[in-house]
Amino acid sequence: MLQRRLFRKLHPPVGARPGTLVVDSGSPAPRIRVTTYAEEGVEERDVLDPNQLRSVVASGAKTWIDVQGLGDEAVLRGISAAFGIHPLVIEDVVNVPQRPKAESYPEYQLFIVRMVEPLSDGAANVEQVSLLLGRTWVLTFEERPGLAFDPVRRRLHEGTGPMRRLGPDYLAYALLDSIVDAYYPLLQRLGDEIEELEDEVMGAAPPGTLERVVEIRKTLLQVRRAVWPLRDALAGVIKDGGPFLTEEVRVYLRDTYDHAAQAMDVTEAYREMVSGLFNTYLSVVSNRTNEIMRVLTVTASIFIPLTFMAGIYGMNFENMPELRVWWSYPALLALMLLVAGGLVLYFRRRGWIGAPRRRGRGQDRRAGP
Amino acid sequence: MLQRRLFRKLHPPVGARPGTLVVDSGSPAPRIRVTTYAEEGVEERDVLDPNQLRSVVASGAKTWIDVQGLGDEAVLRGISAAFGIHPLVIEDVVNVPQRPKAESYPEYQLFIVRMVEPLSDGAANVEQVSLLLGRTWVLTFEERPGLAFDPVRRRLHEGTGPMRRLGPDYLAYALLDSIVDAYYPLLQRLGDEIEELEDEVMGAAPPGTLERVVEIRKTLLQVRRAVWPLRDALAGVIKDGGPFLTEEVRVYLRDTYDHAAQAMDVTEAYREMVSGLFNTYLSVVSNRTNEIMRVLTVTASIFIPLTFMAGIYGMNFENMPELRVWWSYPALLALMLLVAGGLVLYFRRRGWIGAPRRRGRGQDRRAGP
Amino acid sequence: MLQRRLFRKLHPPVGARPGTLVVDSGSPAPRIRVTTYAEEGVEERDVLDPNQLRSVVASGAKTWIDVQGLGDEAVLRGISAAFGIHPLVIEDVVNVPQRPKAESYPEYQLFIVRMVEPLSDGAANVEQVSLLLGRTWVLTFEERPGLAFDPVRRRLHEGTGPMRRLGPDYLAYALLDSIVDAYYPLLQRLGDEIEELEDEVMGAAPPGTLERVVEIRKTLLQVRRAVWPLRDALAGVIKDGGPFLTEEVRVYLRDTYDHAAQAMDVTEAYREMVSGLFNTYLSVVSNRTNEIMRVLTVTASIFIPLTFMAGIYGMNFENMPELRVWWSYPALLALMLLVAGGLVLYFRRRGWIGAPRRRGRGQDRRAGP
Amino acid sequence: MLQRRLFRKLHPPVGARPGTLVVDSGSPAPRIRVTTYAEEGVEERDVLDPNQLRSVVASGAKTWIDVQGLGDEAVLRGISAAFGIHPLVIEDVVNVPQRPKAESYPEYQLFIVRMVEPLSDGAANVEQVSLLLGRTWVLTFEERPGLAFDPVRRRLHEGTGPMRRLGPDYLAYALLDSIVDAYYPLLQRLGDEIEELEDEVMGAAPPGTLERVVEIRKTLLQVRRAVWPLRDALAGVIKDGGPFLTEEVRVYLRDTYDHAAQAMDVTEAYREMVSGLFNTYLSVVSNRTNEIMRVLTVTASIFIPLTFMAGIYGMNFENMPELRVWWSYPALLALMLLVAGGLVLYFRRRGWIGAPRRRGRGQDRRAGP
Amino acid sequence: MLQRRLFRKLHPPVGARPGTLVVDSGSPAPRIRVTTYAEEGVEERDVLDPNQLRSVVASGAKTWIDVQGLGDEAVLRGISAAFGIHPLVIEDVVNVPQRPKAESYPEYQLFIVRMVEPLSDGAANVEQVSLLLGRTWVLTFEERPGLAFDPVRRRLHEGTGPMRRLGPDYLAYALLDSIVDAYYPLLQRLGDEIEELEDEVMGAAPPGTLERVVEIRKTLLQVRRAVWPLRDALAGVIKDGGPFLTEEVRVYLRDTYDHAAQAMDVTEAYREMVSGLFNTYLSVVSNRTNEIMRVLTVTASIFIPLTFMAGIYGMNFENMPELRVWWSYPALLALMLLVAGGLVLYFRRRGWIGAPRRRGRGQDRRAGP
Repeated sequence: MLQRRLFRKLHPPVGARPGTLVVDSGSPAPRIRVTTYAEEGVEERDVLDPNQLRSVVASGAKTWIDVQGLGDEAVLRGISAAFGIHPLVIEDVVNVPQRPKAESYPEYQLFIVRMVEPLSDGAANVEQVSLLLGRTWVLTFEERPGLAFDPVRRRLHEGTGPMRRLGPDYLAYALLDSIVDAYYPLLQRLGDEIEELEDEVMGAAPPGTLERVVEIRKTLLQVRRAVWPLRDALAGVIKDGGPFLTEEVRVYLRDTYDHAAQAMDVTEAYREMVSGLFNTYLSVVSNRTNEIMRVLTVTASIFIPLTFMAGIYGMNFENMPELRVWWSYPALLALMLLVAGGLVLYFRRRGWIGAPRRRGRGQDRRAGP
Repeated sequence: MLQRRLFRKLHPPVGARPGTLVVDSGSPAPRIRVTTYAEEGVEERDVLDPNQLRSVVASGAKTWIDVQGLGDEAVLRGISAAFGIHPLVIEDVVNVPQRPKAESYPEYQLFIVRMVEPLSDGAANVEQVSLLLGRTWVLTFEERPGLAFDPVRRRLHEGTGPMRRLGPDYLAYALLDSIVDAYYPLLQRLGDEIEELEDEVMGAAPPGTLERVVEIRKTLLQVRRAVWPLRDALAGVIKDGGPFLTEEVRVYLRDTYDHAAQAMDVTEAYREMVSGLFNTYLSVVSNRTNEIMRVLTVTASIFIPLTFMAGIYGMNFENMPELRVWWSYPALLALMLLVAGGLVLYFRRRGWIGAPRRRGRGQDRRAGP
Repeated sequence: MLQRRLFRKLHPPVGARPGTLVVDSGSPAPRIRVTTYAEEGVEERDVLDPNQLRSVVASGAKTWIDVQGLGDEAVLRGISAAFGIHPLVIEDVVNVPQRPKAESYPEYQLFIVRMVEPLSDGAANVEQVSLLLGRTWVLTFEERPGLAFDPVRRRLHEGTGPMRRLGPDYLAYALLDSIVDAYYPLLQRLGDEIEELEDEVMGAAPPGTLERVVEIRKTLLQVRRAVWPLRDALAGVIKDGGPFLTEEVRVYLRDTYDHAAQAMDVTEAYREMVSGLFNTYLSVVSNRTNEIMRVLTVTASIFIPLTFMAGIYGMNFENMPELRVWWSYPALLALMLLVAGGLVLYFRRRGWIGAPRRRGRGQDRRAGP
Repeated sequence: MLQRRLFRKLHPPVGARPGTLVVDSGSPAPRIRVTTYAEEGVEERDVLDPNQLRSVVASGAKTWIDVQGLGDEAVLRGISAAFGIHPLVIEDVVNVPQRPKAESYPEYQLFIVRMVEPLSDGAANVEQVSLLLGRTWVLTFEERPGLAFDPVRRRLHEGTGPMRRLGPDYLAYALLDSIVDAYYPLLQRLGDEIEELEDEVMGAAPPGTLERVVEIRKTLLQVRRAVWPLRDALAGVIKDGGPFLTEEVRVYLRDTYDHAAQAMDVTEAYREMVSGLFNTYLSVVSNRTNEIMRVLTVTASIFIPLTFMAGIYGMNFENMPELRVWWSYPALLALMLLVAGGLVLYFRRRGWIGAPRRRGRGQDRRAGP
Repeated sequence: MLQRRLFRKLHPPVGARPGTLVVDSGSPAPRIRVTTYAEEGVEERDVLDPNQLRSVVASGAKTWIDVQGLGDEAVLRGISAAFGIHPLVIEDVVNVPQRPKAESYPEYQLFIVRMVEPLSDGAANVEQVSLLLGRTWVLTFEERPGLAFDPVRRRLHEGTGPMRRLGPDYLAYALLDSIVDAYYPLLQRLGDEIEELEDEVMGAAPPGTLERVVEIRKTLLQVRRAVWPLRDALAGVIKDGGPFLTEEVRVYLRDTYDHAAQAMDVTEAYREMVSGLFNTYLSVVSNRTNEIMRVLTVTASIFIPLTFMAGIYGMNFENMPELRVWWSYPALLALMLLVAGGLVLYFRRRGWIGAPRRRGRGQDRRAGP
C-alpha cells in the first residue's frame, strides 16, 4: 500500500566527509515558496535565488519558507548558508530517509518526520519532511511538490484561528499536526482491510488473502517505524522545549503528541491482529485439511476392503467351490453390506461422518445471558 | 461482544484548524442534567440553554453537570464557553474516541476514559466518558444517555456515605470508580467463555470455536486499549494530584487504581490464555489429522497389497498353471492372511493400531520419588 | 492443579458505595484467635465479640490476632472498628481476590498476599491472606481456617529463635516468609511434572498429555499472578519501610524478597519450558504424520500401478492376443517385479524407506569430547 | 548437558525458623583449606576445627579460607560463628541453589554465584559457589571439592601478577573472574552444537535431532538463569562498591562484568537461534510432508482412474458388445495412455512433477541492480 | 553472508591471569602505520619497533597510529607500554571479539566496535576494531590489514574539511562514523534479499529458500549484536563525554549515534520481517498441502467406489443372474455416471473442485477507492 521501498537510503560512499549531500537524481529541482505573514495579511512569492532568503531572515518578519523538491545540491547549499544551518543538519534533510527526530540547536529547532501523502489512486506515499523552526521563520523541506501542506496554507491565507496572530512556533505546530493527522485515514483504511481479511481468513480464504495479509504487515511495520520515533521526539520537545516554543503553543503540541500516541496504539493493536491472522489462517487451513482427510479416509477405508473382497471372487482358480454354491453371491453381498455398515458406524462414533459433532454447550450459552 | 468498530475515529479533515468539532450525525442531541448538592440536600434539573450554566459556576455551589449525547455542536460550544474550557479539550471530548488520559489545566482536571455500558441483551458497548473536575463542579460528557451513572446519582440523592459531605473531587472519584468497576462483570464473562473454549478446543471443537476464539482475542485487545492508559492516567493523578484533589480523596483514587491494575492483570492473563488456545487448537487438529491418517494408512497398506494379489489371479492368461492346482486357492488365502497378519503386527508394534501406546515411562516416573 | 477458578472476584454491584463488603455466602464464620506473647510466655484464646479486641489494642502487649473465615460482615466490621481500619482496607480484605500489594497507612502497614494451601490429596488451594502490622499487633485474615500458620504458631509457643524477643514486625515477617516458602514445594512438583511431560511429548505422547500441558500452563499463570506483585510489594517495603519495621527485621525481609524473586525466576523459566512443549509437541506430531504418510505413500505408490497392470489382463476382451502367448504371464510378473524394484530403489534413494537416514555426524560428536 | 535437575532446591520445611540449614545428605563433609599469603610468600594448610579460624581472623593476615563440601552442619555453624556471619547468610550458603546475588553487610561482602564445573567426560556440572569478602580474608564455599579454583591457587603460589601484593579484594575478583570465564568454553560448545543442529534440521534431520534441540534449549535456560542475575549483581557491586573493594580492583571487576554481559548476550542470541530451530524444523517437516503427498497424489490420481477403466472391462456381463469388437482393446489402451498423459501434463503444469518448479523470478532479481 | 563463526572467542585458559593475551596464530603480524598531521600537512611512515612510539606520544603532535594485524604478542605489549595502556584494555583489544563498548580512562577513551569489511565477492566480514583516543593521538587496532579506513586516510591527506584543523577527537569521530556507515550497504543488500525472499516464499518457493531465510536470520542476529551495544556506547559517550572530546565534535558524534540508531531500527524491522517469513512459509506450505490433498481426495473418492462396483461384476460366481440381463451393463454404467456426478456435485458444493472459490469481495474493494 505504501510506495517506498523497504529501506532505500540515500547514503554517501562509506567514509565520505560528513555533510556530503547525495542528491537523488530522480528528485525534482527545488521550488522555494516564501510566505510572509502578519496579523494583517499574507504575502506569498516564489524565490529562485537562495541568496534572496538572507533578506527574509534579516527582515524579522514572520515567514514560512517551503522548499519542495531536493534535486539541486547548489540550491540546497545556498538555503543552508542563508539560514546558517549546520552541514550535518542539511545532510539529514537531503539524505532521506532519516530516523524521525527532534533536535535543538542554538539558532533553530529541527524536526524530521515522515509524512503520508495520499495519492490519487487511493494508495499512499511516505516521504520525509524536515522542519526547522527559527526565531521568526519556519523552513520546511518536502521531497517533492505535494498538496499536504495546502490546508495549512489556506488557513494562513484565510486568517481564521490564531495562526497569524501567534508566532512561527504555532505555524510549526500546525504543520506537524497536519502531518500526524494524515495517519488517521490510512489507519482507518488498514483497520477496514484487517477486519475484511479476518472474515476472509475465517471464510473462503480466496487466493491472494495471504499476500494481502503480508502486505498489511509490511505497511504496519513502516507506519510504526515512522510514528514511534515521532512520538518520542514530540515528547522530548514538550518536556525540554526549545528557545522558540512558547508555553501557549506547547499546549497544542501536547495535543499532537496525544494523536501520535493514539496512532501508535492503534498501529500496535493492528500489528497484533495481523500476527493473529497468521495463527488463524494456519488453524483454518489445518482444520480444512483435516476435513478433507476425513472424507478421503472414510471413503477409502470403506471401499478398499470391499474391493478386495470382490477381487477375491474375481480370481480364476479352478478350485473355488464357493463360486458354485447358489447362495454364495447374495451372502457375499450381505457380508459386504455388513462390513460397510460396521465401518460407517465406527466412523460415525468417532465423529468422522454423519451428523456434525455436538455443538451444544457453546451455542446454548451464547444465546443465554 | 463489544459493539464498537475496530477503530472508527471521528476526525476532522486532515489539516483542519485545531479545535474543529466533528459531530457524529447519529449521536443524540445533548441533554444537560444539572445536580446541585450540599450536605443538606440535592436539587436536580435539566438545563436547555448552556448559558444558564454560567450562573451555576458563579454560584459556587457543589454541582454535577452531566451532558448526555454529543449531537449538537452549538450546545457543546456553549457549555465549553460557560466553563472556560480550552478548544483542544472540547475537541477531545467530542471527537471520540480519544486515548484515555488525565490532564491538569489551571481551571480544571480532565479525565478521558472508556466505559463499558452493559446492553440489555447481555452484550456490552464501549463509550467514551469525559470528566472535568473544577473547583466546585464536576462536568461529565457521555456519548449517549445511559444508565451507567445512575447508581452514583442514587447514592447522591440518598445521602449515605461521605459523598455529599465531601467536595466534588469525591464525586469525580465515585464516577471514575463506577466506570472501572464496570469492567469486572465483563472480565468475568470473558473468563467463563475462555474456560469453556479451552474445554471445547480440547474436546470436540465444534464449528465456530475458532470464530469465538478470534472474537474474544479482539475484545481483549479493546479492553486492554481502554484499561492500560486509564491505569497509567490514574497513577499520574495519584502522584502529581491536581489543585482540586484533596488528600482524603486521593486515598480513594488509589483504590480505584488498584482495581484498574487488577483489571489489567486479568486482561493480560486472558490474552495469554487465548494465544495459548491457538497453540492448543493447532496441536489438537494436528493430532487429529495424525489419527485419521493412521487409520487410512493402516487400512490402505493392508488391503492394497492383498487386492493386488487377488488381481494377479484375476488375470485371464491362458498359461497360468497355478490356477489349475487344487490347493493353490487355499494356499493364496493363507498367504494373504499371513501378509495381513504380518502387517497388523508391524503396525501394532509401531503403535498405529490396537492397544493405545504405552504410557509407561511417564507414569512410572510419577510414582517415583 | 490449583483449585481456584480462573477469575472469580467477589465484587459489589457496579457503582456501589466504596467500602461495600460482599460476603461470600460459602465462607465460614470468622474465628478470632488472639495470641498475646512476650519474651516470658505466650497466652492464646478465642475471642467472640470483636469489641473485646479494643482492650487488646489498648493494652500495648505484643499480640497476634488471627481471623479465620470471612463469612460474617458484622464481625468483620467490628474488627475493623476496633483497630481503626479504613473502610477501603477492610473492603480489600473481604472482597477477595485482590491484587497482592503492600501499603503504608499511618496506623498500620497492609500486606495482601496469596497463599498456596496444600490439600490432603496433593493438590493445592490458592487463598488470599491479608496481614496488617500495627505498632504492637499483627492482624491476619485467612479466607478459611487452615493449617498454614501452624508452624509459626508452634515456634511462637516454643519460644526458640528471636520471635518472642523481637516486636510484631518479626512475627509479620515470619508469617510472610512461611507464605512465600509454601510456593517451593508447589514449584518443585510442577518442575517434576514438566520434565515428565517433556519425556512424554518426545516419546509416546499418550492421550491426555496435551491436557496436562495446558493445565500446567494455567497453573503457572496463576502462580505468576500471585508471586510477581508480591515480589514487587516486598521490594517496596524493603526500600521505603514503614513506621513499624525495624532495621533488624528488614534484613530478614530481604531474604524473603530473595525467595520470592527466585520463585518468580523459576516460574518464568517453567513458563518458557511449557511454551516450548507446544512447539515440541507440534514438531513431534508433524514428524509422526510425516512418517505415517511415508508408509502410505510407499505402499500405495508401489501397489497401485501393479494392481492396474493386473487389472489390464483381467479384462475380458476377445481380442487380447497376449493372453494366449505362453510366456506373457511370467513376463508380466517379471515386469511387475522390475517396476516394484525400481520404485523401491527410488524411494530408498529419497530416504523414504529402508535404512533410517544417516545419523552419523551428530551421534559421533556426542560420544566425542 | 548440564547435570543439575531442573529445580531441586534444598529448602527447610515450610514455616521453619529462618536460618534453618538443610544439609544435603549426599554432600561430602567440608574440607577447610586455609591459605595465608603476603607479598613475600604463601602458606597453606587444612584446618579441622572451625574454631581455629578465629585466630585467622584475629591475626589480620591476608587469608583465603576455602570450604569444600557442605555435608556437616556443625562445622558450617562453627565457621559461621568464627567469622560472625548472619544466620540468613549461612542459610543462603547451605540451602543451594540460591539466586545469584551480591549483598553488602557491615562486616563482609557476600557473593552467591553459579559455577560451571567441567566434568571429565566433556559434560559440565552447575554448582553454587558462595564467596564472602572481609577486611582481610576471603571465605569461599564450594558444594564439593573441585578443581575450579586451582588455577587461581597456582597463581597465588607462583606470585606473578599483583595478586599477592594487593588485598583480598583482588583475590575475590580473581575467583569471580575464573567463574565467569568458565562459561566461555561451555558457550562455545553450545554454539558448535547449534550450528550442527541447524545443518541437521535443514538436512536429513536424523532421529534424535529434536531431542538434542530440546536439550540445548534447556541448558541455555539454565545458563541464563545463572548468568543474568550474576551480571546484575556485578553491576550493583561496581556501582555501589562495598567497604572492602578498592578502586583499583573495581576496574578489574568492570572487566569481569563485561565478560558476564557478553556471556549473557551470547546466551540470548543462542536462545533465539534455538527457538528459530523449531520454526525451521516445522517448516522442513511440513515441506517434506508436502513432497510426500505430492508423490502419493500423483501416483494415485493417475492409476486409480485407469484401474477403474480396466475394472469395467473385467466385468462378466454377457451383453458387453465392445468386448467382441477387435479394435476395442487397443483403443482402450490408447485411451488409457491419453488419460494418463493428460494427467501427467496437468500435474506438471501445477508443478507437482517433472522439472523442479521455476525459480526464475527470485534469481533474476538477484542478478539485477 | 557474514564470515565469522557464530561465536569463536579467543579466550585465555579459564583462571588465567587477567591481561593474558591469546594471540590468534592465523592473524598476521602487526603493521604499525603512524600518520602525523597538522593543519599544514601530513606525514606518514611505518614503524617497526614499538618503542619508537614513545617519542610520538612525547612530541605532542597530532598523530594517528593504525595497527593492522594482531599476530605478535611482543609488539602488542610494546605498543601497550608506549602508550601506558592498562593490561585489561590491551586484553580487550587482542582477545577478540569483545562486546562493543566505550570506556573512559584517565589517559584515554576506549572504543571497541565491530566493523563490516566488504569482501571482493560481495560478501562481508565482521572484525573488531579498537580505537583509543588520547590527548594528542588516536590509536586503532584492526584484526587484519584492510581498506576500511582508506577513505578517512585519503581525506586526511587531502586536507579538505575540518579534519586537520580539529584535534584527534575529530579523527576518532571520522573513523567511528565510517565504521557505522559501512553497515548501510550491508543492510540495503539484506533488505533486497528479504523482499526477494518474500516473493519467493509466496510464489514458487524453490528449494533453498528456507536455507536463505535461515541464513539471513543469522546474519541479522550478528548485525544486531554488533550494532546494539555500539549504539548504547555512543549514547553514553555523548552524554558523559570524556576528557578528550570537544563540544564541537560531540555534535558530530550525535549524528553518528543517529546513524547507529537507524541501523538498529532497520535491523529490528528486518528481524521481524524474517520471522514473519517463517509464518508465511508455513502458511503457504500448509495451503499447498491442502490443495494437493484435495486433488487426491476428490480423485480417490470418486473412483474407488466406482472401481468397487466394477469389481462386483468381475466376480466369477455362477449364480449372478444380473449378468445375463441384457440391460444390466448399460444400467450399471448409468448408475456409475450418476454416482460420479453426485460426488462431483458434492465436492463442487464444498468448494473442493471446479470454479475457484469466490474471491469477489476482496478484489472488488481493492479496485475501489
